[in-house]
Amino acid sequence: MTIPVSPSHGTLRPLGLSEVTLKPGFWQRRQEVNRTATLAHIEHWLEKAGWLGNFSAPPDERRGREFADSEVYKFLEAMAWELGRHPDPELEARYQKIVARVAEAQEADGYLNTNFGRPGQPPRYSDLEWGHELYCYGHLIQAAVARARTFGADQLVDVAVRAADHVCDVFGPGGIASVCGHAEIEPALVELYRVTGNARYLEQARLFVERRGHQILDDIEFGRAYFQDDMPVRDATVLRGHAVRAVYLASGAVDVAVETGDTELLDAVATQWSNAVARRVYITGGIGSRHQDEAFGDDFVLPPDRAYSETCAGVGSVMLAWRLLLAQGEQRYADLIERTLFNVIATSPSDDGTRFFYTNTLHQRVLGTEPPADELVPRAASTLRAPWFSVSCCPTNLARTFAGLAAYVATSSDEGLQIHQYAAASIRAAGIGLEIDTDYPVSGRVSIRITESPAESWTLTLRVPHWADGATVDGEPVTPGPVHLRRRFAPGDTVVLDLAVRPRLTAPDPRIDAVRGCAVVERGPVVYCAESVDLPEGVAVDALRLDAEGGLADRDGGVEVTCHVSPPVDGAWPYGPARPAGDGGERVPVMLRPYHDWASRGPSTMRVWLPLGE
Amino acid sequence: MTIPVSPSHGTLRPLGLSEVTLKPGFWQRRQEVNRTATLAHIEHWLEKAGWLGNFSAPPDERRGREFADSEVYKFLEAMAWELGRHPDPELEARYQKIVARVAEAQEADGYLNTNFGRPGQPPRYSDLEWGHELYCYGHLIQAAVARARTFGADQLVDVAVRAADHVCDVFGPGGIASVCGHAEIEPALVELYRVTGNARYLEQARLFVERRGHQILDDIEFGRAYFQDDMPVRDATVLRGHAVRAVYLASGAVDVAVETGDTELLDAVATQWSNAVARRVYITGGIGSRHQDEAFGDDFVLPPDRAYSETCAGVGSVMLAWRLLLAQGEQRYADLIERTLFNVIATSPSDDGTRFFYTNTLHQRVLGTEPPADELVPRAASTLRAPWFSVSCCPTNLARTFAGLAAYVATSSDEGLQIHQYAAASIRAAGIGLEIDTDYPVSGRVSIRITESPAESWTLTLRVPHWADGATVDGEPVTPGPVHLRRRFAPGDTVVLDLAVRPRLTAPDPRIDAVRGCAVVERGPVVYCAESVDLPEGVAVDALRLDAEGGLADRDGGVEVTCHVSPPVDGAWPYGPARPAGDGGERVPVMLRPYHDWASRGPSTMRVWLPLGE
Repeated sequence: MTIPVSPSHGTLRPLGLSEVTLKPGFWQRRQEVNRTATLAHIEHWLEKAGWLGNFSAPPDERRGREFADSEVYKFLEAMAWELGRHPDPELEARYQKIVARVAEAQEADGYLNTNFGRPGQPPRYSDLEWGHELYCYGHLIQAAVARARTFGADQLVDVAVRAADHVCDVFGPGGIASVCGHAEIEPALVELYRVTGNARYLEQARLFVERRGHQILDDIEFGRAYFQDDMPVRDATVLRGHAVRAVYLASGAVDVAVETGDTELLDAVATQWSNAVARRVYITGGIGSRHQDEAFGDDFVLPPDRAYSETCAGVGSVMLAWRLLLAQGEQRYADLIERTLFNVIATSPSDDGTRFFYTNTLHQRVLGTEPPADELVPRAASTLRAPWFSVSCCPTNLARTFAGLAAYVATSSDEGLQIHQYAAASIRAAGIGLEIDTDYPVSGRVSIRITESPAESWTLTLRVPHWADGATVDGEPVTPGPVHLRRRFAPGDTVVLDLAVRPRLTAPDPRIDAVRGCAVVERGPVVYCAESVDLPEGVAVDALRLDAEGGLADRDGGVEVTCHVSPPVDGAWPYGPARPAGDGGERVPVMLRPYHDWASRGPSTMRVWLPLGE
Repeated sequence: MTIPVSPSHGTLRPLGLSEVTLKPGFWQRRQEVNRTATLAHIEHWLEKAGWLGNFSAPPDERRGREFADSEVYKFLEAMAWELGRHPDPELEARYQKIVARVAEAQEADGYLNTNFGRPGQPPRYSDLEWGHELYCYGHLIQAAVARARTFGADQLVDVAVRAADHVCDVFGPGGIASVCGHAEIEPALVELYRVTGNARYLEQARLFVERRGHQILDDIEFGRAYFQDDMPVRDATVLRGHAVRAVYLASGAVDVAVETGDTELLDAVATQWSNAVARRVYITGGIGSRHQDEAFGDDFVLPPDRAYSETCAGVGSVMLAWRLLLAQGEQRYADLIERTLFNVIATSPSDDGTRFFYTNTLHQRVLGTEPPADELVPRAASTLRAPWFSVSCCPTNLARTFAGLAAYVATSSDEGLQIHQYAAASIRAAGIGLEIDTDYPVSGRVSIRITESPAESWTLTLRVPHWADGATVDGEPVTPGPVHLRRRFAPGDTVVLDLAVRPRLTAPDPRIDAVRGCAVVERGPVVYCAESVDLPEGVAVDALRLDAEGGLADRDGGVEVTCHVSPPVDGAWPYGPARPAGDGGERVPVMLRPYHDWASRGPSTMRVWLPLGE
């Protein structure tokens, strides 16, 4: 089955990419851009940067960071999903060619990494903290899993199986009793087990998950929490350390827990997720507040300035929430996926799919500068979307996510079918056919027409997001949470969900010090922002104070609000006796736009959180 | 003259360490701890970490970071000032021994660095971006300058002169036309010129200052602003990049400007300073808000969470402000020095002078953990003061600062004498003798008794700090700013300044988003904080909301305020509809303590900025 994540147990069952097809709309447009523009863009850069060439280059000409191989693998994974969704002989040929180049670099014992083990290079597995060898295998295996599920036996699958066998030989019982500084092999091995049925891979994944947290890696300046080696997965109570590493590891732990029936481990990860979501997640769904170590900060340390919110961490957060959703069936996981998709995943790429944000800040104070079109850009330095980075994990991670996006729309269970994400789509699964029509998130109206149904009654479950006060199903009020419609459906039946998408003002927990006295405008699942290009001449984003009583008006794809504008008063020292509260200042209407579109009209300053003021 | 910084021109003239002696009080206590405990502590660690041993060790046994030599030099500088202040044969012998070890490592052409140029090491000057060779010479020269001024000709002075000549040979006209990734050689060479009269050193310093900013160094991930190579010193309008590098460079630029009569350059640095102080300085005087690159952030990005505020940046900020004060005579420079001394320099060391903060955060959310007593600690990882760091620039920087602290108290000019910092002290300079008695900052009362005076009238200038509303001189009200008392003083005359030290509430510029809706309690020059060890059982620092109308009471060395305590309400998602403003919550008295004493009673949580609430 063409399913990105396919547990053998769980509350909900994923649907395959052949069972859900996106129709024109918000997400299908992005998926098409990914297919028609981003894939070629990535291939161009992989060649240009030499990361593809590494597979045939002599060791001393090897280019890029130690994990550059993984970008090629993530690209292969994206192509595999695309090919499964949409046969394309030209893309197929490009895929085959790259696979052949990769296969050529594999050594006789299955080892495959262009950065280690050859003359003049560091020895294999000599730097588990930073070497990323197992991480690279993880992405190789994920690519092969995608190929196996969309195509079947294939050279890439062979390569990955040989690599996985090598990993089990070297890191299995009696071998190197350690882990990789960057989790990723863990979910990959479980997925390979699901594809091949070979329990050795599951056992190896289990070993990796269990080993971590026992201070098995060397300590580093950022501390062992950086790679989650500070405490065992089953003892931790919150996601911590490097955000991408944290959610990849947690994803692997869920996979292991589900396949081994380890409810203690599953519950531990669910608790970590809950505590992180309650205290360590930006309103966009973004995770990781620190530039220094790309890490979660302490609870409630969520400064919009320099929010790191790495695109890849968003991808990983969706991976994790999706696994927890399948395992436990709770809507809160789908709520976070929606938020992350609309405000992190959708924010990173440019409209044309050839430039990307690596980090996704929530407050841009100075005008960004256009990055060079043909040079590698340091990952977090760019204030505008850039074509490629010296660490370029995000474009390939987005590509594989967009290619498999339809998988997140719905699931099935013995009860029936559950819709988790709203997008125009056709579903045909488990004897049920649905046509979903909606221009969501422009409006909240979602029409679901039954095109095929078993004779007996079944349950259609709709997610009413946590923010959707005032929602209705067929005109009847419903409250946030899952709505279960159990009926004998017949072809032609239609259910209309209206999520009452309208602008609303959202305030932060008072413990998030960095945004005290501020509010965000949200509309449906979308976070809005103020951008300098939308402001009257001479008005700075940082001079705005939102009039909370001034109303929120839907207008031309934006939300119009009223702000007071107090031109800042400069002084020699920015601290002094408290001044009386707001002297008013000029009132101006200000158009807020979706955050995911910001910086698409050239350099601008921007803020998501607006100070409230009278 | 035993003067730490000795310009040949300027509005004010520094006094020598033989002209100002601290008497028992806030600063003399710290100076004594430095002399009696910190110096030995440093020497112990320099031996233990191998950084002293590097000077005689074979190249392949060289230990520590690339700039480890500089810690030995800063230690020598501290010893030199101490010996000048306070002859001590035992300390003199230790000093001589270390100098001999250093001298042994100098090569025939004057080159001296334990990390480069020997077999198996990178070649000399092969990594100007990160190698710190010129930086290390800078500290070597500063140590020699201290020795020359307190003692005279000496082996260390010879070594430094040979090194400086080598630098001029290699980096002078026709040589390597570059600069060091970390400024420091610039002020050092000017000071060596002042000591030796050899204009070649001044010219070399001028070259270094002029070269920087022309993208002469390789680009790095943090961008060239990190080492101020983004734009020429005379074009920049604000301090930026790595904070220590920024203020060291600016100090060197002031030195060059003063000695060459380059008022454009001096004005440029003064403008950079003004703009930084107005927008990029913490209320403590601390600079550098970013952990990642230890850098100034954008204007008004001053989060108390993870404030970097490196101790060394505080030292450098005092160096810079002192140079600007001497050059231009404006009180604002002394105001910032005072703030930085009391809230950064005084905060770093423990009471016993053997543990240090490397960074000086303004908000500690989780209980710190006691660092190991006998291991190197990563610099910014410690949440409590630590004995030594893998990058241990701060302890030695504090040691040389404390040893030369008396220099900042007063200056002279043709008009008379200016008192800048208030501490119990005896001054005997320019035919004027003063006994200053005060328990400042406990109280604001400063009694200045004339013990010696020229017959003709002269001006005693007193600094009334910018915060000192309500100050009096001999009972007469004075306003913040310099107070000039021009008289025929006679021995026995006494002037009493009362700075009306009492608690006050200070609010931030509204553009400092991170502390919106908060206030700080200050008292005189001292910033206060709330610390968990002072709170009633079960009350968390982050639950406090300060009642701005509740009064501020001086009590037992602290300031008692009234806070509302609202136990935090946990939820699944920390954003939601705005809740009505403060429901009150329990009112409790809370004792605030000086920030510089925080974490001296074991692990605690702490905040400087308190949210206001009803």
